[in-house]
Amino acid sequence: MPKYKNILVGQSGGPTAVINSSLAGVISQALKNCEGKVYGAVNGIKGILRNELIELNETFSNEENIDLLKQTPSSYLGSCRYKIAKDSNVDIDKIFEIFEKNEIGSFFYIGGNDSMDTVMRLSNDERAKDMTIIGVPKTIDNDLLGTDHCPGYGSCAKYIATVVSEMALDAGCYDIKNVLIVEIMGRNAGWLTASAALARTMGNTAPDYIYLPEVAFDTEKFLYDIRTKLANQDTVIVAVSEGIKDAEGTYIAESKQAFGNDMFGHGQLGGVGKKLENLVKERLGIKVRSVELNLVQRCAAHITSKTDVEDAFTCGVEAVKAAQRGESGKMVCMIRKSNKPYEISFECKDINDIANGEKMVPAEFITSEGTDVTDAFVEYALPLIMGENDIKYKDGIPAFIKR
Amino acid sequence: MPKYKNILVGQSGGPTAVINSSLAGVISQALKNCEGKVYGAVNGIKGILRNELIELNETFSNEENIDLLKQTPSSYLGSCRYKIAKDSNVDIDKIFEIFEKNEIGSFFYIGGNDSMDTVMRLSNDERAKDMTIIGVPKTIDNDLLGTDHCPGYGSCAKYIATVVSEMALDAGCYDIKNVLIVEIMGRNAGWLTASAALARTMGNTAPDYIYLPEVAFDTEKFLYDIRTKLANQDTVIVAVSEGIKDAEGTYIAESKQAFGNDMFGHGQLGGVGKKLENLVKERLGIKVRSVELNLVQRCAAHITSKTDVEDAFTCGVEAVKAAQRGESGKMVCMIRKSNKPYEISFECKDINDIANGEKMVPAEFITSEGTDVTDAFVEYALPLIMGENDIKYKDGIPAFIKR
Repeated sequence: MPKYKNILVGQSGGPTAVINSSLAGVISQALKNCEGKVYGAVNGIKGILRNELIELNETFSNEENIDLLKQTPSSYLGSCRYKIAKDSNVDIDKIFEIFEKNEIGSFFYIGGNDSMDTVMRLSNDERAKDMTIIGVPKTIDNDLLGTDHCPGYGSCAKYIATVVSEMALDAGCYDIKNVLIVEIMGRNAGWLTASAALARTMGNTAPDYIYLPEVAFDTEKFLYDIRTKLANQDTVIVAVSEGIKDAEGTYIAESKQAFGNDMFGHGQLGGVGKKLENLVKERLGIKVRSVELNLVQRCAAHITSKTDVEDAFTCGVEAVKAAQRGESGKMVCMIRKSNKPYEISFECKDINDIANGEKMVPAEFITSEGTDVTDAFVEYALPLIMGENDIKYKDGIPAFIKR
Repeated sequence: MPKYKNILVGQSGGPTAVINSSLAGVISQALKNCEGKVYGAVNGIKGILRNELIELNETFSNEENIDLLKQTPSSYLGSCRYKIAKDSNVDIDKIFEIFEKNEIGSFFYIGGNDSMDTVMRLSNDERAKDMTIIGVPKTIDNDLLGTDHCPGYGSCAKYIATVVSEMALDAGCYDIKNVLIVEIMGRNAGWLTASAALARTMGNTAPDYIYLPEVAFDTEKFLYDIRTKLANQDTVIVAVSEGIKDAEGTYIAESKQAFGNDMFGHGQLGGVGKKLENLVKERLGIKVRSVELNLVQRCAAHITSKTDVEDAFTCGVEAVKAAQRGESGKMVCMIRKSNKPYEISFECKDINDIANGEKMVPAEFITSEGTDVTDAFVEYALPLIMGENDIKYKDGIPAFIKR
């Protein structure tokens, strides 16, 4: 069991709409059950290295602030993209020095792959034996090993499905042939792009095609697909991952190959959506528009999934409970028990089996043609976007809390 | 008073999140008070020219379908961007022939500037004397004359303020200098870009600068502004209209002038946001990202303003009431009585004073430096984004109705 009673929590990596819900889970469980102080690390590991810790007890003993935190996107404590030095112990030594100085008994790190690497490296150190160190999963990319899904994914997927459904109505309002290309985040794993399929309800058939990084992208086949579909309908809607690659493994977004006329060959300009837009314009001569969902998809706190917010919160709570049981060097994982009704259990798994891995969309979730997802994917993903939160508004927009 | 009892309603121009709410207002008032049939024109005037009318009585005698229609974005009836022929009467003749054939006594056209031109031309024709023809305002651009504001603007503004506030938290989560440029719709009038100011609540100061088409844009001044602000804070957030122009009146997005290195000189590539992103990258060497809000801003039915949905619905209702009083050749206008509490009245104004005009953001709403809006603008715009709708969901996303 930990030598000290104070706890420290940090957030790391790219923002999500619910990483603060996990923070709220850690804080509220800690305030209920820990005797020590609850500290937050400003800007994750970077803040620890600078001894920039803030006490959270007072602000969050107010239940209203916990509620506000749960609906605030991005990282309340600030984030970082810092990987601790691999070739020396300088960072690790400094971190344990700060832990000792502040009498930290438990450390919780909420983040994705890089953050789990940090959790692993710290907890494998000899000096961690008197501490508990637990990782709390977070990533819109849904690509962490060991867990059924990652907090942040469900809300991002709900936003994507919602706006694809809205844009399908928008793009289809004129009686003219047109193509809409929606570029979605996920450089290596296609989970988010796949979630565009959840727009298909109430008679909506869009997106017509889904292109994932897991399947080699062929531009001629793509043009053929579009042409074929346009023969029978006015509007064709395509969901495409920013990370699609050709058969040689080159990102389409970075391809030096000329797309359309040669001015579009510059890899630096825009993303894959813009490239495909120019390709369609040039080769098919049809009205086409690309929409990059960009930042909004990962911070759309105004349309979070209730399931996701609750899962994120519970992951935080379970992390503190695990520490109280004396577990360490682990990440909180969710195990799917049932899709319908949605049922999960929580379990802590060895961080060494998780860190630095990456979970791709499996073959059984992708159709044999490679341009769509299967029903099995929809059964997996649908529960994660279900439910709406009763969001508090201030001056016409969702309220949030700032540090 | 009209010779016939049937009514016809059409939708035209770009989609909004609430144009169907105005349609719902027309239909429900007509079903309550008109003895004839209620027809909808598929794809606006284009559908009338093809005699493509659908009867709406049965579907919308079901109150649940009216509610679904109110929360469905884009145009339920389909839209068009068709301007009736100016140099001949071929279109007008055909339209009156279809009116006669279907015994149409009242025609309601929901749309923006082009649609009001159609309303004017039809109602100024001799053959309209036995009919009532009324325009119902619709445009996210908020640029129609005669009315305090336009249905569609408030919801779009609510989405913009919301996501700017969310992205401000997102962009500010790292402790590194960075610039975020948000490109917002509105080619000539800056009403939508101005609404980004509504993100400033709960201690949020973003956006730091607002660039409207009403003010000549100077790239050197822009770079100076950014640099100045970056001296005192890590993150600078800029809201910029797609339609900003230089002092010569050339759209920055179309400028042939080299932005950053010369490859960015091609006017065809991306919009103004991408151009300014490249300019900042090249000249200031700082982390910068541009986000084009694109289609989603005009069809974000998932976060409509309750005020806007209600105003849109009432405009539809008032159009039918005006027709019943025998008014014709007019557009339903809203008159602001008070900002706090928000109070408006409805009045029909002569279409000849409205069509083909364009209402810009007035000088009193823009600061003297030209890079922000005044408190007077906020007092005007804030009531329009207030209130949330109780949106029905199906399979995790907002439900809608399709024709």
